[in-house]
Amino acid sequence: MAERGHILLAVTGWDPQPWQAALARHAPDRRVVLAPDGAQDPAIDYALVWNQQAGLLTHLPNLKAIFSLGAGVDHIFNDPELPEVPIARVVSPDLTERMSEYVAWQVLDHHRRGPAYRKQQEGCVWHEFLPQPAASEMTVGIMGLGELGRDAARKLRSLGFRVSGWSRRAQQIEGIDVYAGAEQMPDFLASAEIFVVLLPLTPETRGILNHGTFAAMTRREHLAAPVLINAGRGGLQVESDIVAALDMGLLSAASLDVFETEPLDAASPLWGHAKITVTPHAAAASSPDQLVGPIIAQIEAFERGARLDNLVDRRAGY
Amino acid sequence: MAERGHILLAVTGWDPQPWQAALARHAPDRRVVLAPDGAQDPAIDYALVWNQQAGLLTHLPNLKAIFSLGAGVDHIFNDPELPEVPIARVVSPDLTERMSEYVAWQVLDHHRRGPAYRKQQEGCVWHEFLPQPAASEMTVGIMGLGELGRDAARKLRSLGFRVSGWSRRAQQIEGIDVYAGAEQMPDFLASAEIFVVLLPLTPETRGILNHGTFAAMTRREHLAAPVLINAGRGGLQVESDIVAALDMGLLSAASLDVFETEPLDAASPLWGHAKITVTPHAAAASSPDQLVGPIIAQIEAFERGARLDNLVDRRAGY
Repeated sequence: MAERGHILLAVTGWDPQPWQAALARHAPDRRVVLAPDGAQDPAIDYALVWNQQAGLLTHLPNLKAIFSLGAGVDHIFNDPELPEVPIARVVSPDLTERMSEYVAWQVLDHHRRGPAYRKQQEGCVWHEFLPQPAASEMTVGIMGLGELGRDAARKLRSLGFRVSGWSRRAQQIEGIDVYAGAEQMPDFLASAEIFVVLLPLTPETRGILNHGTFAAMTRREHLAAPVLINAGRGGLQVESDIVAALDMGLLSAASLDVFETEPLDAASPLWGHAKITVTPHAAAASSPDQLVGPIIAQIEAFERGARLDNLVDRRAGY
Repeated sequence: MAERGHILLAVTGWDPQPWQAALARHAPDRRVVLAPDGAQDPAIDYALVWNQQAGLLTHLPNLKAIFSLGAGVDHIFNDPELPEVPIARVVSPDLTERMSEYVAWQVLDHHRRGPAYRKQQEGCVWHEFLPQPAASEMTVGIMGLGELGRDAARKLRSLGFRVSGWSRRAQQIEGIDVYAGAEQMPDFLASAEIFVVLLPLTPETRGILNHGTFAAMTRREHLAAPVLINAGRGGLQVESDIVAALDMGLLSAASLDVFETEPLDAASPLWGHAKITVTPHAAAASSPDQLVGPIIAQIEAFERGARLDNLVDRRAGY
C-alpha cells in the first residue's frame, strides 16, 4: 500500500474548522496540518488552499500539488513566490449545480420582471401585463465556458432560452453560438440581452466589465437595455462603470454576487441602487464535504499512479 | 373546399380588440362576430370564449365546439346553460413555456432564499451563508400533472430538483414519483418541501389549499416549513387559511399568482404579508397570437375531418 501523503490546509479569511472536520471524515488516516503553524513541515505532500499567505508554499521540498478549495484559482496566484508544482481547480458536481441554480434564478428574475412585480406588490398595484417576451425570444450570453458556464448554458436552454457564449479559445457546444477571442467579442456582445459572467480572473480579464463593454452590448429596439449578471469574480468588474451604465441606460439591471472588495462595504452605493441585486458571494456556496471529497479522491488516484485532473494552465492563469 | 365556419368571440373582463386582431391575422377569410352583439347569429359554428356571459351559447343551432382562450376551463362551466357541444382546452407551447418559467422562477426564488437576501440588501448586510440545501436535496411536489404540470416537472428535474406529483388519476412519468387520488394525497403531502399547484378548478378541487392540507405537509426537522406556490386558480385556495398557516409556521412562504377574487383588492392583507409574493395572474400571460394560432389550426383540421384534440371531460370538469 502506497504511503498516504501529508496534507497542508491553508485558508485565509475563512474558518478552517469545517475544512479540518471534512478532512477528518474524508481522509481519516492522513496527517493534516494547519497553516501557518504546520506550514514549515518538510513532509507535506499536498496543499489545499484558499487565499494562502504569500510565500507559505515556497519552501516545501516534497510538495506535489496545490488544490484550490473554491471555484477559481486567482487567489492562489496572488502569491509571487508560488512553487512550480501542478495546481488543480476544484470541480465538484455540487458546486456546479449550485452555480447553475444561481444563474437560472437571476436570469429568470430579470426575464420575468421580478423587481417590477415586487415594486407593484409594495404599492398594492394590480397591473397584469408588463411587457414580457417568451424565453425563446431571449438570448442569454454566457461569458466563460468552463465547467460552470457549460452547465449553466445547458440548463438555460432546457428552460427555453436561446444561449450564446464567449470564451478565450474556440469550442463547440451543442445548441450554443460560441464566440471566441478578442476578435469575436463585439459580435458576442451584440448577440444577447442578458449577460452572465463566469470568467476566471486573470490579467487578461481584469476589469473586462467596463464602460466600453457595456456600450458595445447592442440594444434591440423592442427590448430594454441588457442585464448584467456577474457570478465570476469582483475583479472582473469596474463598479463605478456599472453604476454609470445603469444610470445612463446602457444597462437596465445588474445582479452582482462578487465585488471589487469583499465583504462589500456598507457605504457602497451598490447596496441601495434600485437596479442592482446584491448577494454576498453566495452563488455557489458549496460545503467543505462536497469539495474535499473530490480532492481526496483525486489524491488517492494520483497515489495509485493516475494523472491529476483539472490542472491549471499557469500561463493562462486558470 | 370546405365551408369556413363562422366564429363567435366572447370575452368578459378582457379587451376583445387584440383577440379580434389575432383572428384577423390567423383566419382572414372567416366571418368573426363579437359577443354580445353577434351572439344570436344562427350561422355561428365555433365559440372562442373567456368567461362568457351565462346563456350566451345556449341557442346556437350550428355550434360545433367551444374553445377556451386561456389555460383552464372552469370559467366556461360557470354558465349553467352550457350547450352539449365539445369543449377544447387551449394547449399552446408558448403558454406552457411561460408557465414553466414562472414555476422555475418562484421555486428558485424560495430555494435560493430570495426574500432573505433582498432583506439583507435593504439593510446593507453582508452575511454569506444562509442555510442552503442543494436542489438535489429538495423535492418539489407538483399538484396537477396535465400539460403544464408535466412540463414544469421536466424542467425542475433538469435544474437538479427531485420532483414528486399528484393527480386525480394514476400516471407514469419518468423520474417523478406520482401519487394519485384522495387516498394517496397524505403520502404526496409528506413527499416534498416546495409545493407547486397547477390543478384545474373543479367542484372536487375547490378550496383544496386549506388548513388540513397545510397541516398534512410534513415538516422535516432540518428544513423550514413548506413553501406553497399557486399558479392554478384562486378558487383552489382558502386565503384566510394561507395567512393563518404562514403566521403559525405551517408554511414558511407562499407565492400566489391567482386569488379568490381578481383583481386582488388593494385592502387585501395578502399584499403586505412579509411571507407572500403576489403576482397579478401573470404567470402565463401568453399573447392572443400564440393562443389563436393553435385554435384556428384545430378548426381547420376539424373541417378536413380530423377529431378535435384536448377535449374536456365534462364530468371531471377539466
